[in-house]
Amino acid sequence: MFEKFLSHDVQYLRSSEIRDLLKLTEGKNVISLAGGLPDPSTFPVEDIKRIAEDVISSKPEISLQYTPTPGITEFREQLVKLASLRGISGIDPANTFATVGSQEALYMTFNLLVDPGDYVAVEKPTYLTALNVLRARRPNYVGVPLTPEGPDLDSFESSLRRLKAEGKRLKLFYVIPTAQNPGGTTMNLNDRKRLIELAEEYDFLIAEDDAYGFLVFEGDSPPPLKALDRSERVIYLGTFSKILSPGLRLGYVIASKEFINELELLKQNLDLHTPSLTQMIAAEAIKRGVIERQIPIIRKTYKEKRDVMLQAIEESFPKDAKWSRPVGGMFVFVWLSEKFDTVRLLEEAMRRGVAYVPGSSFFYDYSGRNTMRLNFSFPSKDELRRGVEILGKLLKEVSA
Amino acid sequence: MFEKFLSHDVQYLRSSEIRDLLKLTEGKNVISLAGGLPDPSTFPVEDIKRIAEDVISSKPEISLQYTPTPGITEFREQLVKLASLRGISGIDPANTFATVGSQEALYMTFNLLVDPGDYVAVEKPTYLTALNVLRARRPNYVGVPLTPEGPDLDSFESSLRRLKAEGKRLKLFYVIPTAQNPGGTTMNLNDRKRLIELAEEYDFLIAEDDAYGFLVFEGDSPPPLKALDRSERVIYLGTFSKILSPGLRLGYVIASKEFINELELLKQNLDLHTPSLTQMIAAEAIKRGVIERQIPIIRKTYKEKRDVMLQAIEESFPKDAKWSRPVGGMFVFVWLSEKFDTVRLLEEAMRRGVAYVPGSSFFYDYSGRNTMRLNFSFPSKDELRRGVEILGKLLKEVSA
Repeated sequence: MFEKFLSHDVQYLRSSEIRDLLKLTEGKNVISLAGGLPDPSTFPVEDIKRIAEDVISSKPEISLQYTPTPGITEFREQLVKLASLRGISGIDPANTFATVGSQEALYMTFNLLVDPGDYVAVEKPTYLTALNVLRARRPNYVGVPLTPEGPDLDSFESSLRRLKAEGKRLKLFYVIPTAQNPGGTTMNLNDRKRLIELAEEYDFLIAEDDAYGFLVFEGDSPPPLKALDRSERVIYLGTFSKILSPGLRLGYVIASKEFINELELLKQNLDLHTPSLTQMIAAEAIKRGVIERQIPIIRKTYKEKRDVMLQAIEESFPKDAKWSRPVGGMFVFVWLSEKFDTVRLLEEAMRRGVAYVPGSSFFYDYSGRNTMRLNFSFPSKDELRRGVEILGKLLKEVSA
Repeated sequence: MFEKFLSHDVQYLRSSEIRDLLKLTEGKNVISLAGGLPDPSTFPVEDIKRIAEDVISSKPEISLQYTPTPGITEFREQLVKLASLRGISGIDPANTFATVGSQEALYMTFNLLVDPGDYVAVEKPTYLTALNVLRARRPNYVGVPLTPEGPDLDSFESSLRRLKAEGKRLKLFYVIPTAQNPGGTTMNLNDRKRLIELAEEYDFLIAEDDAYGFLVFEGDSPPPLKALDRSERVIYLGTFSKILSPGLRLGYVIASKEFINELELLKQNLDLHTPSLTQMIAAEAIKRGVIERQIPIIRKTYKEKRDVMLQAIEESFPKDAKWSRPVGGMFVFVWLSEKFDTVRLLEEAMRRGVAYVPGSSFFYDYSGRNTMRLNFSFPSKDELRRGVEILGKLLKEVSA
C-alpha cells in the first residue's frame, strides 16, 4: 500500500545489493576490510571530554542554543586557522560554512549545482557515497581515469575539447587530489596547477574533497587546489571525521561568499544549522592545539597499519595483481587480472571470514569489476594480516 | 559569473524579504518578538555537562565513532520510552529514526513523499519553515482554515470530496495538532479521531509535527494522532529542541518500518547519520529522568511568560484585534482588523524598537496580511511588556 505515496525521486536512492550483503557482516565473525572507520585508539577522548565540559558550562547560551545557519562565529574563525595549516590563505570566516559531516557538504554542493543532464566529471574510481548523491541528480558523467599520479589530465583535456566541439559544457569536476579514496593516489603540484588552468580555460567549477588532506604520512603533501585557486572556482570540502572524531559528524566548506550564501539558503530548509555543541567542541580543539597534536599520532598509527597491509598483500596476493601504495588515507586499492569478478567473489570471501568493497561500486559506470578496496585504518594489525591472508588464498584458488 | 552554475531548483530557495529585514535586528537594540528560541534558563546545563562527560569517557567507541544511519540502538530504545510518555504505544526501536532536528525530518519526509503537482494539505496558517521546504517540492496546496479549536475539518472534508470528484487525490496532510505554530490551537480528541478516519477513508498520509507536545501548560493534552493511528498512516515528528536543548539539533521520526527504510536511504546520501554524541546525550537524559524533570519547569516558565504577554496585549492592543490564548507552545497569533498590513508595518515597528513575524509568511498563499506572530518564550518578562506596549501604541496610531 505504501509504494504509491513515494516521490518518483526515490528510485534514485535504491540501496545497492553490495550494501545489503555487507550488512550481513554485522555481528558476525568476519574481518571487515570493507569499512572506512578511523581507528578509535586515535580519538583524543580525554581532551574531547574536558572541552565538552568547558563549552557546556562556560557558554551554554551558544553550545546549547540555536545558532546561525552558516556556523558559529568562533568555529568559523578557527576554520580559517585550520585551513591555513593546509596552506589556504586569503579567506575570512565568511568564506566558511559548517556542515553535518562532509557528506552534507557533498549533498548540498551537488544539489545546488547539478541538474539532470548536466556534465559532471569524476575520477574512475571515486568515492562511493559521493557517486550515490550524484546519481540522484542524474548528470551525464565525464570519467577521468586514475593513474598512479592521480587523474589523467591528458585524457580529461581531450574530453573537455570534445565536449566543447559538441557545444556542451562541463559544469563541475568532483575530485579528491590528496590520498584519493579509493585509489590512494596524490596529485603532484604541476598537475594541480594545470587542473586549475583547465578550470579557468574551460570555465567549470571544482569540488575538492580533502577528507584525507591531513592524513598524508609519507613525503610532503602538495597544497590543496583551493590554495592555488585565484578565481574562486574551487569549493573545498573538509571534515573532522579523520582528525578528531567521526561521531561529531562535523564537516565544512570553504568557498566564495556567493556559494556560501546559496549553502545557507538550502541549509535553512535542510536542518537549520549544524549542532552548536559539536561546532564549539571542534573550535576549542583547534584553539587548544588538540588537532595539531593529534595529526602526527594518527599519521604514525595509519602508516604502520598500511605497512602491515602492504606486506601481507605482497606475501599472499597473486603475482599478476597490482595495488596502490598510498602515501596517506585509509585504503589500498587492488587491480586483479581481468578474469576476476570481485562482486561475485564477495559472498565466498565472507563465508571464509573476510569482507571488502568490490571496486565497481566506485566507478560511475560500474566498470572495474576486477578491483577491490581494502581498509587498513580500523582493523587491528593482526586482523589485517589474517584478513589479507584469507583473501590472498581465495584469489590464488580462483586464479588456479 | 556564478549564476550560470546553479541548479534550476535554487529558484525555490530564494530568501524572503522578511527574513532579510529581520536579520537587521541582529546586534541592534530591538526587542525581538520574532524569534522562536527557547528560554536558555530552562536548559539543564549541569545535567547535560555531566552526561556529556560520562558518555564520552565510558563509551567513546560509540559517542565519537560512526554509528548506524537510522540511529544508535540505545537512543532508539529511549525514544520508545519517550514516545510512551506521549501515549504512543505498540512501537519498537525499528519504528524510530534519529534526525538533525525535526527540520531534517520535515525535509526528508517532504522529499520522500512530494512530487511537483501532488496535492498536499496544510493548515492556514502553518509553520513557516515547513512551508519553505514544501515550496521547493512545488505541490498543489489544499488550505485548511484554522479555527480556535484547530483545523476546520468540515472545510477539509469538503475539499477532500471536491478533489475526489475531480479524480484527484490528496497525498499528505502536514498538521500540528498540539499547540499549533503559529496559531496556538490544540485539536480536541474527537477531531483527532475524525482526522484519522478521514485519512483512512480518503487514503492519505499524515505528517504530524508534535514539536510542542510536551509543552502544554494548561489542561490535559489529548494524545497525538500517532497514538490513535491503527493503519500506519501517521509519520510523527518530534524534537529535543524544546525539552532539552535546540543546540543539540536532535529530532526524531516515529513511523512504519517501510517509511523508516526510505528515510535511511535518503539519509545515507544526506549526512550518513545524526551525530553520535548528541544521540548519546539525549538517550542518557531520558534514561536518567532529566527530561521528565525538565518538562514541568519549562511549562511553568512559559505559562508565566504567556500570561505576561496576554495581559500586555489586552492592555495595549486595539479593541478590534483578536488573538490566540495558547494552552501551550511559545507563540501568540494576532488577527488585526482587515485594514492592517503587517508586512508594511514591520519596518516602522523595528524603528521603534520591536520586531515580530508578519503572519502572511505562515500562509501558503501569503494571505493573512493583517496577522502577526509574537514569541513569548525567549524575551524577558520586562521585554515582553515593553515590546507589546510599543507595538500596541503603533497599532493604535495606525488605527486612528
